[in-house]
Amino acid sequence: MVPRLSSGWPSRLFWWRAARTPGAHGQPSTRNGASRVPPGVSPRVLAGGGPAVRRGSSSPSSRGPEVALTCERYPVRRLPFSVVSEEDLASFERIVPGRVVTDPEELEASNVDWLRTMRGCSKVLLKPRTTEEVSCILRYCHGRNLAVNPQGGNTGLVGGSVPVFDEVILSTALMNQVISFHSVSGTLVCQAGCVLEELSRYVEERGFVVPLDLGAKGSCHIGGNLATNAGGLRLLRYGSLRGTVLGLEAVLADGTVLNCLTSLRKDNTGYDLKQLFIGSEGTLGVITAVSILCPPKPGAVNVAFLESPFYVLVETSGSRAEHDAEKLGGFLDQALGSGLVTDGTLATDQRKVKMLWALRERITEALSRDGHVYKYDVSLPLDRLYDLVTDLRARLRPPAKHVVGYGHLGDGNLHLNVTAEAFSAPLLGDLEPYVYEWTAGQRGSVSAEHGVGFRKRGALGYSKPPEALQLMQQLKTLLDPKGILNPYKTLPVQA
Amino acid sequence: MVPRLSSGWPSRLFWWRAARTPGAHGQPSTRNGASRVPPGVSPRVLAGGGPAVRRGSSSPSSRGPEVALTCERYPVRRLPFSVVSEEDLASFERIVPGRVVTDPEELEASNVDWLRTMRGCSKVLLKPRTTEEVSCILRYCHGRNLAVNPQGGNTGLVGGSVPVFDEVILSTALMNQVISFHSVSGTLVCQAGCVLEELSRYVEERGFVVPLDLGAKGSCHIGGNLATNAGGLRLLRYGSLRGTVLGLEAVLADGTVLNCLTSLRKDNTGYDLKQLFIGSEGTLGVITAVSILCPPKPGAVNVAFLESPFYVLVETSGSRAEHDAEKLGGFLDQALGSGLVTDGTLATDQRKVKMLWALRERITEALSRDGHVYKYDVSLPLDRLYDLVTDLRARLRPPAKHVVGYGHLGDGNLHLNVTAEAFSAPLLGDLEPYVYEWTAGQRGSVSAEHGVGFRKRGALGYSKPPEALQLMQQLKTLLDPKGILNPYKTLPVQA
Repeated sequence: MVPRLSSGWPSRLFWWRAARTPGAHGQPSTRNGASRVPPGVSPRVLAGGGPAVRRGSSSPSSRGPEVALTCERYPVRRLPFSVVSEEDLASFERIVPGRVVTDPEELEASNVDWLRTMRGCSKVLLKPRTTEEVSCILRYCHGRNLAVNPQGGNTGLVGGSVPVFDEVILSTALMNQVISFHSVSGTLVCQAGCVLEELSRYVEERGFVVPLDLGAKGSCHIGGNLATNAGGLRLLRYGSLRGTVLGLEAVLADGTVLNCLTSLRKDNTGYDLKQLFIGSEGTLGVITAVSILCPPKPGAVNVAFLESPFYVLVETSGSRAEHDAEKLGGFLDQALGSGLVTDGTLATDQRKVKMLWALRERITEALSRDGHVYKYDVSLPLDRLYDLVTDLRARLRPPAKHVVGYGHLGDGNLHLNVTAEAFSAPLLGDLEPYVYEWTAGQRGSVSAEHGVGFRKRGALGYSKPPEALQLMQQLKTLLDPKGILNPYKTLPVQA
Repeated sequence: MVPRLSSGWPSRLFWWRAARTPGAHGQPSTRNGASRVPPGVSPRVLAGGGPAVRRGSSSPSSRGPEVALTCERYPVRRLPFSVVSEEDLASFERIVPGRVVTDPEELEASNVDWLRTMRGCSKVLLKPRTTEEVSCILRYCHGRNLAVNPQGGNTGLVGGSVPVFDEVILSTALMNQVISFHSVSGTLVCQAGCVLEELSRYVEERGFVVPLDLGAKGSCHIGGNLATNAGGLRLLRYGSLRGTVLGLEAVLADGTVLNCLTSLRKDNTGYDLKQLFIGSEGTLGVITAVSILCPPKPGAVNVAFLESPFYVLVETSGSRAEHDAEKLGGFLDQALGSGLVTDGTLATDQRKVKMLWALRERITEALSRDGHVYKYDVSLPLDRLYDLVTDLRARLRPPAKHVVGYGHLGDGNLHLNVTAEAFSAPLLGDLEPYVYEWTAGQRGSVSAEHGVGFRKRGALGYSKPPEALQLMQQLKTLLDPKGILNPYKTLPVQA
């Protein structure tokens, strides 16, 4: 029996289930192979040992073999950009003195993505502190025809945040200042390099929450969140960044600073230019500052962890614990009474809530420990959401190990993961274009929230008509005629 | 004493107050000059007599003098577009047989805006029923270099919806079909010409609400709502169209159909092209179909009409009447106890709720009956929201009659209205650029939700930096190189 505790509105809703593919070998992954979690189980057991590994700061790297160069693994040719010279390095040193990184070891973490499946060979990383410095860097690179890879926390999952060849890495790591916070409206204005978790702490101390939360919060930058239009764990509750971001500042390819950093709830003075930069993955400009509306911190938060054939995590937030308890209790009574839910546990205290969330947030990490992960992130009609998983389980054979489907039930977003001991080209051939065709057949999206980056640009045509792809390319050409910003990413692969 | 009735979360929050300018003559306007409304007053009295006049279907026209041609009142020169010929009319007749309007009397309603301050001299209005027909029309006009004025319900307040010269009027009036409605997710897909109020009724019968509501709902089209990024009465509760619109279909200037009509909550497959068309006022393409997420209809709705020095209208929506009653009751106790609110009335039954809302929704109409209205619609920091009103009252002299400030407290949106018996150029000179400079001084927006249209394009520079204006112009040139779509609107006035 589920204890009746307090809650209000379903604000987050997730689910996952795991099973091994027929004939697969190897250990089931820590989280997903676990058998049914008994209700009321000790939070310590639920959360597993040790602190959460943070995407970006600690990667699955240490265990795997050397990551192959992207340009060797994938058929991609370097575009005719200039090569960074000694003179260029000297110029960079004048722009950001003492913040020009050329040490190969230091560069390693920025050349390789968190999943360790992509590796660039950049020779230089720059750490500007101000918009003005970003502008100087881009103006210089534009003049010299040097390609630039903007980088936030490097937590992306589609190879969008690391160089493909020798692009100059422009890191927002030192652009981490809060500019202002309005304690009545909850409007936060900050530099693009602020780490999401730190912003979260900052506004929570002031009675608000950031309308965005995701597993990579300990490393990801708010600028990167905007650049990738990150979805995450609070989208169902607070809506997408398209609505919660009030303004931004971006530097264009030629160094022009575009200041759209307003803090107004309503502003219909012409085209909403900020939307161009949200979700364009650094290909149209580099986001340098952000203005975002933070909702009031909910007075009552409840998490329900339920079991049917699926694990379902529901978080509610409201202002009155007793009201929320009544509503959630009523819902659970109904769900249990009808047999829809077989078992579960509820949490209201912060510690247990966090531990339940860790189960969900660490799935990505758990998967990465199962070997090479083929990751797909699709939007599907709700009633077909899990069919792709069962379909693939029936279809795939070794070297596939596990087919794992989890995701965001409220958003129709399936995270589909297929693991193998190591990268296998034939397995990739079994997965693609099959997964994309299946998704297109349901009029779904081949990238729900992870974006396009390097990996999915060949799949864009499955979700966007040719007219849309052409307009994307025209926008890219308009804003970045030399194509120096995050090349080889986001735009459809040229024929 | 305010009765303690039921409510939940403040979902709409409005206020207004009226006073006459020193030395002004004439009658106080019906609504705004009214003295304090006693609490518990009969709903009949509150709502006034007769059915609500709908913007577009009935305009303040019948009383006023003939509306001057826009091109005679304002310094604007016709661009070198072709003139519609007999041959063109024959071609249109082949594209939309029986739906080519050339009768001057019928054209009148589409040549003059609802405020009756702008008049075009278009000789033809076309009524396509399908996207394909819109595409054929635009392809033809593009080839012939004919300017086109897309028109929905013609309820706009900035002169964006009527021709300035002899543009071909492309009306969405017959594109009024619901395409699909998903009864679990609440996703509504429909043609652009559906009237907001009819959509509202359609989804409410199915247990949902449109996330958008505004005074012009009886006439405005959903396509026009998107094209102008309409804010309205539910923005505080459900967020802006930037978040609630899931997809759209638009026809570009050359007739290309851009199908971004998905119904997915999450879709990060490249640039979010639909955002280009939301709020671009028909200058980048004609929206032909819309996919929008409708939230569940709230089980409990309460409206509080409060008085302090200001009238404040608060609407809450929730799922449990008794919970909401407790929360709203607590809030009112506190507000009354502290002296912040002096008096008021509460409503839960649908009839009284509607009547209270009519007080707010009919302010625009009431103002228009006071003579010529100089309308401003600005976003300001909350703590300066009303200062512009008091400032202007002290500053203006006759022929100004009333300075009325009302708006959306939760959004920081002030609707500033100055009335006079008739249009007066010197009064305009007193108002502009003063109002814009004042707003820019507060880093506000010179158009919060009404848009730019014809009237505000000279004011864009007060809220957007030159780099942004330039990018807007570049986008216009990219998408509509001949400039045939809604010319003389939205873009900054060329030097």
